[in-house]
Amino acid sequence: MLKGRLFVISGPSAVGKGTIINEILNLKDRVSLSVSATTRAPRAGETEGVSYYFLTHEDFEARIKNDGFLEYAYVHGNYYGTPKAHVEEYLEKGWDVILEIDVQGAMKVKESYDGGAYIFILPPSIKELRNRINKRGTESAEAAELRMSKAMGEIEYLDKYDYFIINDDLDEAVNAVSAIMTSEHQKIDESAEALLNRFKEEN
Amino acid sequence: MLKGRLFVISGPSAVGKGTIINEILNLKDRVSLSVSATTRAPRAGETEGVSYYFLTHEDFEARIKNDGFLEYAYVHGNYYGTPKAHVEEYLEKGWDVILEIDVQGAMKVKESYDGGAYIFILPPSIKELRNRINKRGTESAEAAELRMSKAMGEIEYLDKYDYFIINDDLDEAVNAVSAIMTSEHQKIDESAEALLNRFKEEN
Repeated sequence: MLKGRLFVISGPSAVGKGTIINEILNLKDRVSLSVSATTRAPRAGETEGVSYYFLTHEDFEARIKNDGFLEYAYVHGNYYGTPKAHVEEYLEKGWDVILEIDVQGAMKVKESYDGGAYIFILPPSIKELRNRINKRGTESAEAAELRMSKAMGEIEYLDKYDYFIINDDLDEAVNAVSAIMTSEHQKIDESAEALLNRFKEEN
Repeated sequence: MLKGRLFVISGPSAVGKGTIINEILNLKDRVSLSVSATTRAPRAGETEGVSYYFLTHEDFEARIKNDGFLEYAYVHGNYYGTPKAHVEEYLEKGWDVILEIDVQGAMKVKESYDGGAYIFILPPSIKELRNRINKRGTESAEAAELRMSKAMGEIEYLDKYDYFIINDDLDEAVNAVSAIMTSEHQKIDESAEALLNRFKEEN
């Protein structure tokens, strides 16, 4: 099965999405992580084409007009979006593509792209999520509280997803994502008819 | 997720279903293979409760009346069926249950049981299937030809299944079945609402 699949991964802040995805990229061949585009300025340590594609407002808006985004949003004066070109290029050459995006972005992708698999990563408990957010320690108590309240809002979207994984043990969570990616390739779809026809011709 | 799942595995004769399932039983915990019941006489080497449950016609028919089978069929003067009790017992204690049954049986299970996952095992090619059937060498040329023709009829049911696996490399096929079994447990179902409610209560 040469066709690549799109995997959309969401979940509240600090739930461990990035760590899981890095492990998947190390573990599995022919998997590409989509890099988002944004108009906000690069922060210290961020690299063009790795952290984000950093675009000017003019560039971003020109690409919107050219239908260049799978989804985009305008948040606090800046654009954020998923460029179509990278996703399409990799899917066409048979790679799986992972999008790590928030629930709003995921819902927009769902509207425009057929056939993706949507995975929601959950914390083992709300208490644990609070711990993980606090442990990051880069923010004020208010900012942490805002993240918690945003997380609760995001979890409401759970039933719009196809799969959920509770990130209690990292290895188990990685194994579950990997299993989902493998199993999606085994699903009966339009390729089953082609297969059936090949067998009949061979007989 | 404590709920057990039902996995129905079909595929033509000699495609390697039994070998794959044995590997799965060795590899994964809390998986049980359903044992069929039949009224035919035991053959040399067959063990009661392992190969089959061997029943009298009277016993089998009494169990049919008591709704004791997930599916059954009457073939060449003998009954064959899947006893409900074993399947239900294991699913209830949270084990996954595998049924290795033909397409007719699988379609009957689909009518009566909600929520199973249906996996079809295919040979890499018709030529290879013919080789595998001939290699078994326990049969006449006519019997082998009958198996081939039955196989072609079974493959027609492919699109009634959820997943397909081409058994070219045993390890890959086992890995694919294992991935499907893992991923089915991650699907969003009615348990997602319970999870959501738990998170809200914790907050």
